[in-house]
Amino acid sequence: MKLADLYQVENRTTVRVTYRDTDQMGHAYYANHLVWFEIGRTELVRQLGMAYREMEQAAGVFLPVASAQIAYRAPARYDDLIEIRTRVARLSHVSIEFHYHVVRRDGDDEVEIAQGSTRHAFVGRDGKVLKNGFEILRVEG
Amino acid sequence: MKLADLYQVENRTTVRVTYRDTDQMGHAYYANHLVWFEIGRTELVRQLGMAYREMEQAAGVFLPVASAQIAYRAPARYDDLIEIRTRVARLSHVSIEFHYHVVRRDGDDEVEIAQGSTRHAFVGRDGKVLKNGFEILRVEG
Amino acid sequence: MKLADLYQVENRTTVRVTYRDTDQMGHAYYANHLVWFEIGRTELVRQLGMAYREMEQAAGVFLPVASAQIAYRAPARYDDLIEIRTRVARLSHVSIEFHYHVVRRDGDDEVEIAQGSTRHAFVGRDGKVLKNGFEILRVEG
Amino acid sequence: MKLADLYQVENRTTVRVTYRDTDQMGHAYYANHLVWFEIGRTELVRQLGMAYREMEQAAGVFLPVASAQIAYRAPARYDDLIEIRTRVARLSHVSIEFHYHVVRRDGDDEVEIAQGSTRHAFVGRDGKVLKNGFEILRVEG
Repeated sequence: MKLADLYQVENRTTVRVTYRDTDQMGHAYYANHLVWFEIGRTELVRQLGMAYREMEQAAGVFLPVASAQIAYRAPARYDDLIEIRTRVARLSHVSIEFHYHVVRRDGDDEVEIAQGSTRHAFVGRDGKVLKNGFEILRVEG
Repeated sequence: MKLADLYQVENRTTVRVTYRDTDQMGHAYYANHLVWFEIGRTELVRQLGMAYREMEQAAGVFLPVASAQIAYRAPARYDDLIEIRTRVARLSHVSIEFHYHVVRRDGDDEVEIAQGSTRHAFVGRDGKVLKNGFEILRVEG
Repeated sequence: MKLADLYQVENRTTVRVTYRDTDQMGHAYYANHLVWFEIGRTELVRQLGMAYREMEQAAGVFLPVASAQIAYRAPARYDDLIEIRTRVARLSHVSIEFHYHVVRRDGDDEVEIAQGSTRHAFVGRDGKVLKNGFEILRVEG
Repeated sequence: MKLADLYQVENRTTVRVTYRDTDQMGHAYYANHLVWFEIGRTELVRQLGMAYREMEQAAGVFLPVASAQIAYRAPARYDDLIEIRTRVARLSHVSIEFHYHVVRRDGDDEVEIAQGSTRHAFVGRDGKVLKNGFEILRVEG
């Protein structure tokens, strides 16, 4: 795959807000958005033909997070069905950045819940940074 | 230590209910009680002169849970300071059972939040059951 | 619906184990099972034609948990697809008990992860126990 | 209190990493940092003579999060004792920004785990933005 094509791939995954996720304001607690981001990037990676689990177990590649940012737009509430839209925003040999867009579908309308991004290094079993991010994601340099 | 003496040891540990713990009923969500139980038994084991982390890393002893039960008495709420009281209820060569009592201190009064128990096997790095529970806890057979 | 018919209804819901759910043993942490149970009973109630959210908001009926028990059979691991099977095990005018069976599907085989039960009271907005459990679940007395 | 003095106040709160917090890499999962931030700002607000709980219940003031960012420096591991250092970084009439610094104390040394910030609006019970942030925090304009 070409890098420009990779940037076009968007994964859309749906999750339901559970009771556990809520806080006493009746909203999904603000750390859940990072869990949703994780679900989104796992599914995006799966859609690209890999699986996080195999990356870790077979290839010995880990993606520890270096930074995260979240802009909260509207609360998600108990039992809401929300959609996580995930893209690769930037790929280099040593790191990858994902962008996330979380919306609540309401018939034809949609309400923006949050957007955000996370940056991750490619790291080996020994904790050292790998320099073959393109190869890992099978992207032509 | 004699087994009868071990059964007398009670650990008391205090934790505060955070926003994350609450649900939209305004109560601590019902899975948090198992997290409190975990905090209680970790501190009890520490009080007995060991540390879970060392048990796992140095001794290669793990304590996967076999069963858990919880009786919920009264809700814990945001910002409550609760006390977890933990004892060893039963020790055998292959397993250990902890009992927990969670209360909310309110001046001299206390309100019972929950009680419960968990049973754990002693397991080695290879996943096989160990048969030296007394030795691990330094209890005379 | 007749009570005997209610007891025959089984909801089957699938969830994927996320990174958040795992602990350093590489297993789903033992409190997640209660979260799965919650997902199971929410979906069972939905399948019966109600929604927890509406019960709370419209009808002012809450189902706080009175007790829970879990028997852990085998670990669930990161990225496992697990199935939660939920039934009403007992209904009275004042309380309801759910039974849960969690399995990992592996082609035609299935591995039992856990089973358990929770008991809940029917409670009104004022915190008082309601005595119309049959009516709430539209079951003939 | 003068605004310049408010900015000098630093709260230091210690928490222990529990098993629940870890993931299968053996690190504290990346969403826990937001939970630690929450603990830090709750304790800072308490140190300033208020309590979140009272703000919500008595004064009807809520602080929903508008944005969050986290820079992850080093992993926190199971049983680590970590210190959360929290300050008010910016106060306006309609919003407040907290800065957080999370370190692991290791004797006299300390290792930086993460730093970050969150921004919150002052909001009333009706969900409308309040414009008396200075008054709420008893800061002279």
